[in-house]
Amino acid sequence: MERDIRSIISQMTLEEKAGMCSGKDFWHLKGVERLGIPEVMVSDGPHGLRKQNEKADHLGANESIKAVCFPTACATACSFDRDLLKELGEALGDECQAEDVSVILGPAVNIKRSPLCGRNFEYFSEDPYLAAQMAAAHIQGVQSKNVGTSIKHFAANNQEYRRLSCSSEIDERTLREIYLAAFEAPIKEGKPDTVMCSYNKINGTFASENHWLLTEVLRDEWGFGGYVMSDWGAVNDRIEGLKAGLDLEMPASGGHTDAEIVAAVKAGTLDESVLDTAVERILRIIFKFADRRMPGNFDKERHNQLAAKIAEESMVLLKNDGILPLPKEGKKIAFIGKFAAKPRFQGGGSSHINSCKITSALDAVKQTPTITSSVTYAQGYDVAEDQTDPNLLAEAVQTASEADIAVIFAGLPDAFESEGYDRTHMKMPESQNELIREILKVQKNTVVVLHNGSPVEMPWADDVNAILESYLCGQAVGAAQVRLLFGLANPCGKLAETIPLKLQDNPSYLNFPGDGQKVEYKEGVFVGYRYYDTKAMDVRFPFGHGLSYTTFQYSDMQLSCDQLADDDTLTVSLKVKNTGNMAGKEIVQLYVADQTKAANRPEKELKNFVKVYLEPGQEKAVTMTLDKRSFAWYNTQIHDWYAASGDYQILAAASSRDIRLSKTVRLSTDTKLPFHIHRNTTVAELLADPRTAPVIRSMMEDLASDMIGGGDNSSEAASEAITPEMTLKMLENSPLRSFKSFSGLSENELTALIEKLQAAAGSDN
Amino acid sequence: MERDIRSIISQMTLEEKAGMCSGKDFWHLKGVERLGIPEVMVSDGPHGLRKQNEKADHLGANESIKAVCFPTACATACSFDRDLLKELGEALGDECQAEDVSVILGPAVNIKRSPLCGRNFEYFSEDPYLAAQMAAAHIQGVQSKNVGTSIKHFAANNQEYRRLSCSSEIDERTLREIYLAAFEAPIKEGKPDTVMCSYNKINGTFASENHWLLTEVLRDEWGFGGYVMSDWGAVNDRIEGLKAGLDLEMPASGGHTDAEIVAAVKAGTLDESVLDTAVERILRIIFKFADRRMPGNFDKERHNQLAAKIAEESMVLLKNDGILPLPKEGKKIAFIGKFAAKPRFQGGGSSHINSCKITSALDAVKQTPTITSSVTYAQGYDVAEDQTDPNLLAEAVQTASEADIAVIFAGLPDAFESEGYDRTHMKMPESQNELIREILKVQKNTVVVLHNGSPVEMPWADDVNAILESYLCGQAVGAAQVRLLFGLANPCGKLAETIPLKLQDNPSYLNFPGDGQKVEYKEGVFVGYRYYDTKAMDVRFPFGHGLSYTTFQYSDMQLSCDQLADDDTLTVSLKVKNTGNMAGKEIVQLYVADQTKAANRPEKELKNFVKVYLEPGQEKAVTMTLDKRSFAWYNTQIHDWYAASGDYQILAAASSRDIRLSKTVRLSTDTKLPFHIHRNTTVAELLADPRTAPVIRSMMEDLASDMIGGGDNSSEAASEAITPEMTLKMLENSPLRSFKSFSGLSENELTALIEKLQAAAGSDN
Repeated sequence: MERDIRSIISQMTLEEKAGMCSGKDFWHLKGVERLGIPEVMVSDGPHGLRKQNEKADHLGANESIKAVCFPTACATACSFDRDLLKELGEALGDECQAEDVSVILGPAVNIKRSPLCGRNFEYFSEDPYLAAQMAAAHIQGVQSKNVGTSIKHFAANNQEYRRLSCSSEIDERTLREIYLAAFEAPIKEGKPDTVMCSYNKINGTFASENHWLLTEVLRDEWGFGGYVMSDWGAVNDRIEGLKAGLDLEMPASGGHTDAEIVAAVKAGTLDESVLDTAVERILRIIFKFADRRMPGNFDKERHNQLAAKIAEESMVLLKNDGILPLPKEGKKIAFIGKFAAKPRFQGGGSSHINSCKITSALDAVKQTPTITSSVTYAQGYDVAEDQTDPNLLAEAVQTASEADIAVIFAGLPDAFESEGYDRTHMKMPESQNELIREILKVQKNTVVVLHNGSPVEMPWADDVNAILESYLCGQAVGAAQVRLLFGLANPCGKLAETIPLKLQDNPSYLNFPGDGQKVEYKEGVFVGYRYYDTKAMDVRFPFGHGLSYTTFQYSDMQLSCDQLADDDTLTVSLKVKNTGNMAGKEIVQLYVADQTKAANRPEKELKNFVKVYLEPGQEKAVTMTLDKRSFAWYNTQIHDWYAASGDYQILAAASSRDIRLSKTVRLSTDTKLPFHIHRNTTVAELLADPRTAPVIRSMMEDLASDMIGGGDNSSEAASEAITPEMTLKMLENSPLRSFKSFSGLSENELTALIEKLQAAAGSDN
Repeated sequence: MERDIRSIISQMTLEEKAGMCSGKDFWHLKGVERLGIPEVMVSDGPHGLRKQNEKADHLGANESIKAVCFPTACATACSFDRDLLKELGEALGDECQAEDVSVILGPAVNIKRSPLCGRNFEYFSEDPYLAAQMAAAHIQGVQSKNVGTSIKHFAANNQEYRRLSCSSEIDERTLREIYLAAFEAPIKEGKPDTVMCSYNKINGTFASENHWLLTEVLRDEWGFGGYVMSDWGAVNDRIEGLKAGLDLEMPASGGHTDAEIVAAVKAGTLDESVLDTAVERILRIIFKFADRRMPGNFDKERHNQLAAKIAEESMVLLKNDGILPLPKEGKKIAFIGKFAAKPRFQGGGSSHINSCKITSALDAVKQTPTITSSVTYAQGYDVAEDQTDPNLLAEAVQTASEADIAVIFAGLPDAFESEGYDRTHMKMPESQNELIREILKVQKNTVVVLHNGSPVEMPWADDVNAILESYLCGQAVGAAQVRLLFGLANPCGKLAETIPLKLQDNPSYLNFPGDGQKVEYKEGVFVGYRYYDTKAMDVRFPFGHGLSYTTFQYSDMQLSCDQLADDDTLTVSLKVKNTGNMAGKEIVQLYVADQTKAANRPEKELKNFVKVYLEPGQEKAVTMTLDKRSFAWYNTQIHDWYAASGDYQILAAASSRDIRLSKTVRLSTDTKLPFHIHRNTTVAELLADPRTAPVIRSMMEDLASDMIGGGDNSSEAASEAITPEMTLKMLENSPLRSFKSFSGLSENELTALIEKLQAAAGSDN
């Protein structure tokens, strides 16, 4: 049924309209009974439903209903699997329909600028393309069930430190290419019902009051049609927010800000049409949900199995010297570490799920009849303690020494990773590092299984035989771990972020988390592998890295053409073959490397990927497309995406450091950049532009022949001081004004020359 | 004799005064015969006199007189020897007096931001303290002979690319702490007669038109009393320059800008008093020279010996496994490489000296009777070629294989390093790297001697037995090399810059040389070792590193006090003992490491050094002082230097990575930083300031007890979602405005709270 929303609004009082723009309580929007506007609920996500089952207190800290905790975004991004994320979204949508929740908050696509950000476990990646693809699929999944999403936290919220007041200082190119790009594709393609604005300021203006962000970019450029809600407590000035495009304030404001809106309209400082527009956006989404309820299906056991499947597809085998898979029979295997019995599988804060069921690796191994190897257990460490407990250590070393293989379940305690604060270092508790060191002394077959929401330093990485990265993989984590460790499933996740050797290597290290007033993103677009690869730094494990129990061969890369115009699409195809003995999935990554040198760009950037399943010996052709945007950078001179004419390398890769195939395509753009010519425009700039090169070249030729190749002055000593190369470079670097002294140009002649060059270059705007 | 300059000016016509403000030709200032104003000459330096001996052409490319080429600044800085730089300055002063040169241009103190800058060989260091100390001594030496200096290039000119038009974009703190600091101490302590402004823009304004730079900082703050001249061709707008504080335009302007000045005064757009002031400054320095001529003494042979001595004190022994010193007798030593016969010892451009005599290592070894080991020679490579000449390589390998030890003289060709353009990479010609690799295959005793103005990548560094870094060490380079290689002298230089493993490691790598319009110094204060040490990066050789043939032991570090107030001076003493068998000199470096965390600072910074000579077994006490400035950073909130109260580590070190002794001093400052309190001031900020902490703490106590430690809501699941730690952090990060929702503060109560806190904090300006 189609509602006549404008007619409803016309029947609302000013106070009712103002009231629609803030929450009724912590989780509900206000309704207007006489007009049939229902009180709908929104609820935390995004890796499960956190619906509070009592009247929420003012912090939202009440217990929530039992639900399924799926793997967190830091894990699911490693699946590189759009279909899988869509399936996760569908499950969440079903749960929301069953629980009468109109919008499930998320997905969260903020870029992992620093591994220290306390909320990284909720975020997908250091790469905006990957984050965007995962988010778009998540949104499509949820919204296919007629439940809304709220992509968050818009925008440039990449730390918890002083998140309510700190300003993220970022140049526009970096914002566009990295921090906004993660939102752009999901909003354009996924069409989320709502967007949640972040707490922080961006370049001095609160996100919640940022007209450029919430209206010019989000709606005018990207075509967003839903409503913008504030993160809980993100409103600073309610009237400025409404004017900027912030429709809904959450949670309840105690009526204060509703009254401010009413007063502002009455005083004439807020145009009532601004309020009407906000109310219209909110009502459209309320009725979109209320008028199209779908039968809910919250089958916890089915969703628990889905959580296990997603976990299995997301975990990353970082290292394996052949020790994995573990023998299913005939061996003695020691599971060491508390996380084997009581795994860590989610982070703290608003995303925290009250899990309906938790499967540890110890549970799972017992429940798997095909595993007959004996599995022993020792706790090894006290999760919360940095100091080693000598008794636990001794017991663990003993247990490990008596086994054929030791599997150490390690990682970060809860208190290390949460919404609300950042880590201050990237280390695991010393008690766990010591445990690993001590076990390595008695056991030469050692596997480490990690539980963490963001990378840890691994000083023992070269010494252990295998490392399985579980991230925070949801309530069924143990089931997936056991299937992967024992080869009942084949690892197929790849890293959605670089794991650096140490914290100091990170590009934001010198500028994180800022001085409390502002945080300067001085690394610019060089985030994650864009930095490590451009700086050719050693890393522990590169972006896109992940091993399998089988091997894959790439071959026969083909481009649909080798010359491209602005609007052309390039299709890249290649063959991938499973050359090992086990069925498996390979994630093929497509990077583009700009060779034009037109801008200061990362060495390469991820622009597409595909995940392909192959039986042993099977070969498949995969295709991926690239378009202008895949080649472009954000040019602030024209405030648009721009790809310069020239060569671009297309790299098919198994990780950002494992390039398997490459081809070059030549792009030709019709876009002419404006060229403003003035007294300090240099000869080099004029020579580089085909529009002005002929004019300046004819002028230079006479002059250069005077200056180079020496006349009477070319003694050896003089020519060593001022070499021809230097003379040429000096000419190139010369601004037009220097011709006044070099060649006696008068001021009038200089002005005429500038005019002539500007005419050749065309209008400069 | 004291001239009445103002009286002279009062007798000058407007045209004569304007004429004093630009050159007569390439190298002379104009005179006014009727008023007894002589035409004085200025001439290029700074590591020798480059006086052109014919009428200069318009590029200054004529041959210059024969003079002594001393080691360039990149080398002399490695001496860490203030007395030696003064002696060099005195020699230059003598030469200028003999040649009637009023000002010798230099020293050049620009910071080595990138190893690629083509002019780095003319600059001292990546560290402003070291650069400043070397420059001050140089200036004092020259000016003790009544000859002027012109410290250059003021300021922030750290690349050649687009140097005439590019804007160096640098935040004020970085400018003050790094780029201006290298000028500040020499100008304050050395009192140079002139300052040369640079070509480039700084934050959008040409240095030549920068009133803040040339007047507010240079004269008002630092008390500079001489004249400012333009670098040759650096004038953009003559009138704006004059108003900003640029007194003298060089070279001649063909009368154009003189006429502009006259016209501007007549039109009333330039106050004649501005012109009079500039003329007065210029005349004072002209007469200072003309009225106090000193007998010139240009003894080329004596100065050649001084050049050899300075070279010997400047070269840096980077690596030595014991192969050095070379045996003086009984062995067969192969000198390999063209630079053994025809050394490279200076760079190209305006500093290029027409050397009166050149001593190669081959010359020197023949001239040293105590060396009876036989020395063979093979050219090895063609200097200008990247490609290997197979014949030269084969001959060199043969020569090396027949010797007991091979000494490879390698380095950069002339064309790699010059004023006017930058390097594009940090590699030696591949022909030389290949030569080293091939010789290592046949000869296990291999020494590399380097000739270069800025670091090179050394892929063979781990494989050779010793490396002697000669930099560009002046015309007597071979004499110094032979004395050092054979142990007739003991190496005592230390690196004035970090040698990174590869170019990409450099902090400016992602932002050098900019886009042609501007270059952003995004690494901020983290230049050189400030970056490498703070990021804990591996380097090839650290700042301050240099070996000796003897060993030194540091002991008994003492601080004059352990508590310091703002105006106190701290005296640091320690003992250094020569624990080896050869007399030698040790450079003891004093670094300060701020432990207060009040600002984002480098891990440590050089704040003093001393060079001490010790006979074998001898021990000396050395003392160095530190003052407030040694602890301070530039606080842009108060536009002044500021050292927070708290602990500072004092590190006595043999290099930035070889800390031998350390002590901690506690500083207490009386400076109160302004504290402006507003709606978005956070609880954490208020708690951190002793002025506001009591007010906010009493307010918080009630609130916190409500929120933490849980009442009825503290089920296990809820407390996992919102932990006490998270609640505390949330409170700390909360801005005052959030108390409106947290604790129901009204807008009026919030305003009153802010006023109360502001009153406690004092006025905020």
